[in-house]
Amino acid sequence: MKHILTSDQFSREELLEIFEEARKLQEAAELPQIMKGKILATVFLEPSTRTRLSFETAMLRLGGQVISIPNAENSSLNKGETVEDTGRMIDIFADIIAIRVPKRGQVEEFSRQVTKPVVNAGDGTGDHPTQILLDLYTIWKNRGTLDGLTMGLMGDCAHSRVLRGMARMSSVFEMNYVFISPVELRMEEDVKRLLAERGRGVRETISLAEVIGELDVLDVNRIRHEYFEDQERAQEIGKQFILTKEMVLKGRQQLIVLDPLPRINTVLPEIDELPQAKYFEAVENGVFVRMALMKRMLD
Amino acid sequence: MKHILTSDQFSREELLEIFEEARKLQEAAELPQIMKGKILATVFLEPSTRTRLSFETAMLRLGGQVISIPNAENSSLNKGETVEDTGRMIDIFADIIAIRVPKRGQVEEFSRQVTKPVVNAGDGTGDHPTQILLDLYTIWKNRGTLDGLTMGLMGDCAHSRVLRGMARMSSVFEMNYVFISPVELRMEEDVKRLLAERGRGVRETISLAEVIGELDVLDVNRIRHEYFEDQERAQEIGKQFILTKEMVLKGRQQLIVLDPLPRINTVLPEIDELPQAKYFEAVENGVFVRMALMKRMLD
Amino acid sequence: MKHILTSDQFSREELLEIFEEARKLQEAAELPQIMKGKILATVFLEPSTRTRLSFETAMLRLGGQVISIPNAENSSLNKGETVEDTGRMIDIFADIIAIRVPKRGQVEEFSRQVTKPVVNAGDGTGDHPTQILLDLYTIWKNRGTLDGLTMGLMGDCAHSRVLRGMARMSSVFEMNYVFISPVELRMEEDVKRLLAERGRGVRETISLAEVIGELDVLDVNRIRHEYFEDQERAQEIGKQFILTKEMVLKGRQQLIVLDPLPRINTVLPEIDELPQAKYFEAVENGVFVRMALMKRMLD
Repeated sequence: MKHILTSDQFSREELLEIFEEARKLQEAAELPQIMKGKILATVFLEPSTRTRLSFETAMLRLGGQVISIPNAENSSLNKGETVEDTGRMIDIFADIIAIRVPKRGQVEEFSRQVTKPVVNAGDGTGDHPTQILLDLYTIWKNRGTLDGLTMGLMGDCAHSRVLRGMARMSSVFEMNYVFISPVELRMEEDVKRLLAERGRGVRETISLAEVIGELDVLDVNRIRHEYFEDQERAQEIGKQFILTKEMVLKGRQQLIVLDPLPRINTVLPEIDELPQAKYFEAVENGVFVRMALMKRMLD
Repeated sequence: MKHILTSDQFSREELLEIFEEARKLQEAAELPQIMKGKILATVFLEPSTRTRLSFETAMLRLGGQVISIPNAENSSLNKGETVEDTGRMIDIFADIIAIRVPKRGQVEEFSRQVTKPVVNAGDGTGDHPTQILLDLYTIWKNRGTLDGLTMGLMGDCAHSRVLRGMARMSSVFEMNYVFISPVELRMEEDVKRLLAERGRGVRETISLAEVIGELDVLDVNRIRHEYFEDQERAQEIGKQFILTKEMVLKGRQQLIVLDPLPRINTVLPEIDELPQAKYFEAVENGVFVRMALMKRMLD
Repeated sequence: MKHILTSDQFSREELLEIFEEARKLQEAAELPQIMKGKILATVFLEPSTRTRLSFETAMLRLGGQVISIPNAENSSLNKGETVEDTGRMIDIFADIIAIRVPKRGQVEEFSRQVTKPVVNAGDGTGDHPTQILLDLYTIWKNRGTLDGLTMGLMGDCAHSRVLRGMARMSSVFEMNYVFISPVELRMEEDVKRLLAERGRGVRETISLAEVIGELDVLDVNRIRHEYFEDQERAQEIGKQFILTKEMVLKGRQQLIVLDPLPRINTVLPEIDELPQAKYFEAVENGVFVRMALMKRMLD
């Protein structure tokens, strides 16, 4: 576990260890200053305030320091430097690196020349393992277990790195899955194959209403208009996949609603006050999950 | 005093307490490391180097740490997130928040969902209370009192958040006011009404020369061309409202000249060497005023 | 040595003291926290990730803190503030300042109103003394001496601040020089005059192949197309001045290859694995050279 590149690199035991560690940190009266003398580099060649600040907060609260490339404009990549050379440079300055890039696979490229631990903080349609980790931790923390739960993954199952990654990471537990997506954006075969191999129950539907009563978790992700040729169809689909309070109230009382945020035509603000809404709690949990992960990577 | 949103939320006693605290910090042989373990978020959805770095310096010198959104481009607001959701996110990461936004009222919107103390670091034509605080502190520090002084507010009295805010904040003291502005940009009624209610003397003029001899303080603010339809008129007015050394020397010896900076057709560099020029001293004072304010907010 | 503005302001003794200090820091089991309570401002009105993060890493690892203007867009210069006023502002916030600007001479302008130590981190075609320092330190560290060595400076000798600065800084030692450049981009007279005054051997050529066997050091710098009227000629020249593995292997075994990076048509990646390639080692050395320099400036 030198680098954290994908959502399916974790075993069941590793996930539970990370979750236990995150909870220990979250419950600590005072945070241990275990990162003293350490430097985190946040390299965001595509900007993401939430993820960048979450990593930085985690590092600073454990006593460490931060250097940052908050966007690509200021980077030497803009002058024509390769991702590998940028990696070699950051490797010299930092003790641990969180990097976001616009294209799938670029974090892997970056990590190839790097001796320090690298965390993939999002690589296009590729993956975003710490987002999945913090969502999964949020479910585990609320329910005490992950085995036996049924998880709805709603939105663009074809392209969303978060929905795809969630299916892959969580399936080391005995979960069941419902993919809720428009027919154009169904979950791809690679993920379905993995779930089948692991013996997980899978169902697909275009209608949340049909399955809402069966779900323990509903992870919602935006549908991007750019994936549709027919913009009228995109509009119509977009409306169908907005989550309303009415719908949430049709679900189980223990339902956990997640959204990686920012919410763009996903969960309506009217849901925020419901106990089912866990997306802001997940942001808070994320700081501790990232603390636990960085601690593990630097041990 | 949970959030600092406007210039008129301070009582006379509160202002004097903040000024005393700022002076104590400024005179300390060593700064107390009272912010250890605390994180300030500087959220500048409109960039302002001076204000951002002043807050950050204040926090770092008291032993705290900083996370930052230095401009809107890198923020999730750019992806369509609401100001309220950005607030909820920052609330989770930081212990105290300094925020600048392009539009009046947006800091108030932002603060609505935030449990941590928020400082308005400028909201369009709205307000900028810490700029006023540091200018007022500079006068208090130099003169030992604010009661009895006559303050000239020169420039765009109609739109300048600094001139408007200065009148409102300072009028809890027994000051007199002279508004020096082109007829198009006269101080609005709300401010005049407040001053009248508080029994403060008010005079209006278009000519600084006429009143320069009566002033203890002259606070100068730029006139923006975009508020004029007639650009020739704007040019002419602009020239009239530049402050020269000759004019300053016509005033009292104790005159205090202030300018929020950057100076754009306001105070000429030839004034810098005069003892009357206090705008750079005010920048230095500002770091200690912000320390005192943040200390108070986190107590 | 209040400000570090140019490459030729250092005596032989000063350079050796800085190098000894850098080596001491580099070999220390634990870095001394000598910058505790100090703030470095990195003011990059032209972005440069490598140089900015190197300075910041140096400061943080010695226990200090950092405030930053990572690009001009976010600076008040963009609103029309002069470089001098920006200097006055940063002077108030920071204890030491590293600044990059787009135009030659602007760092000198900036430093004029500044009481704190300023380091020129690149001013257009002007200078970049810390880059030269770190390259020279890398040679000294590898060879144990600088006297008697022959240094090839290859690329745009006319405009490159790094090639020009290297000749000027290093010539306090008894070195010999070979300028390898296209005829359009020959080293200018001022540098040649200085080397002549100091009695250093100088040779000029357009062909690296001709001289590769004589070199102890080869410092390579990119040739910018924008300096050529004839773009076909620019292309052709560009190709001739790319450094290949084949060429490096024709040189001495002890040859040290340097490049300020990012590499744009300079050293090919195929060289990276050769022991002659010292450009990544130089990035690492640079952190310690900047530590040593800042220590000296703040002593």
